[in-house]
Amino acid sequence: MDKKELILKLADINAIKFGEFTLKSGIQSPIYIDLRVIVSFPEVLRAVSDEMWKKVEDLDFDMVCGVPYTALPIATAISLDHDIPMVMRRKEVKKYGTKQAIEGIFEPGQTCLIVEDLVTSGSSVFETIEPLEAQDIKVRDVVVLLDREQGGRQNLAEKNYNLHSVITMQELLDTLLEANKIGEAMHDKVMEFIKQSQT
Amino acid sequence: MDKKELILKLADINAIKFGEFTLKSGIQSPIYIDLRVIVSFPEVLRAVSDEMWKKVEDLDFDMVCGVPYTALPIATAISLDHDIPMVMRRKEVKKYGTKQAIEGIFEPGQTCLIVEDLVTSGSSVFETIEPLEAQDIKVRDVVVLLDREQGGRQNLAEKNYNLHSVITMQELLDTLLEANKIGEAMHDKVMEFIKQSQT
Repeated sequence: MDKKELILKLADINAIKFGEFTLKSGIQSPIYIDLRVIVSFPEVLRAVSDEMWKKVEDLDFDMVCGVPYTALPIATAISLDHDIPMVMRRKEVKKYGTKQAIEGIFEPGQTCLIVEDLVTSGSSVFETIEPLEAQDIKVRDVVVLLDREQGGRQNLAEKNYNLHSVITMQELLDTLLEANKIGEAMHDKVMEFIKQSQT
Repeated sequence: MDKKELILKLADINAIKFGEFTLKSGIQSPIYIDLRVIVSFPEVLRAVSDEMWKKVEDLDFDMVCGVPYTALPIATAISLDHDIPMVMRRKEVKKYGTKQAIEGIFEPGQTCLIVEDLVTSGSSVFETIEPLEAQDIKVRDVVVLLDREQGGRQNLAEKNYNLHSVITMQELLDTLLEANKIGEAMHDKVMEFIKQSQT
């Protein structure tokens, strides 16, 4: 599955939907990217993790950390396929046991690659970077399947994190238009929305 | 890695600790099983998922669901290796977007295998079964790496769920004693604790 086939497959499985959606921020969006469904399609999850791996295989890192939840299986696939240790960030911190926001074994000074399904403003990524850095884990690189091109890359760059993305929103829309999965009107409407809602 | 090697490896990576620990329930325990660390050892995660798969490969199910968090990577490994769709239960339900406790694609009437790292009383497993059954997903089988032998099997059986475990607490302790990883005193102390704290 190459990148274009992956984009079409994501549309096929309704990971990319067009219509009227209310985002986390309260904003109305003509596109909704719901990558959580990929866990139900192991061959898609595999293709996603393979494409993401290609973007980072030459980088230097000691471990991977997936942003919960969708990126956890992606990080797991990368960890298993390439024998790289993983750590996990909990969404909530346990009140009993070893009380850790970061699960797994690591040493201060080690470097962690952040794995995320998509980046908008980068806020979810920062929520994951924060507890890692609090444990003296170094973060330099973030890999995502999709860059929504809504400011995440710039926000990360300002703090010296490099964003590596497999697909940009522009590529996604162009590929769907070319394959007649969306019309020109929807293509332009979404591009306009993306430009106007840069964060 | 066979089952005995896996048990010794789990002790090596401190997934099994002996001492004095306060459990979720408030009870003091001489043993603490912390399987969350396995994500940092991809070869152990692989061995765990392989051993768990052997217990369930002849059963009939349409998908797997890992109990968050430790079992998510195990369920992911099973899903990827054997091309079985996965669903994920969220610990918290999102307040925006598609608002689902169960993430992924499924149809009413499909059957789901529950994947959990260890079972004590079975309460975490029931917390995962409940939202699945609320979506008309059938649950018959639960696979765990470790059965702590503290009532989980019976509690599940009472509601007609079958527990499949790779390792029992007795096997774990016997293997560690045989390999001189613990002494007879600790072996007997933990067995006594387990017997007394059946739930």
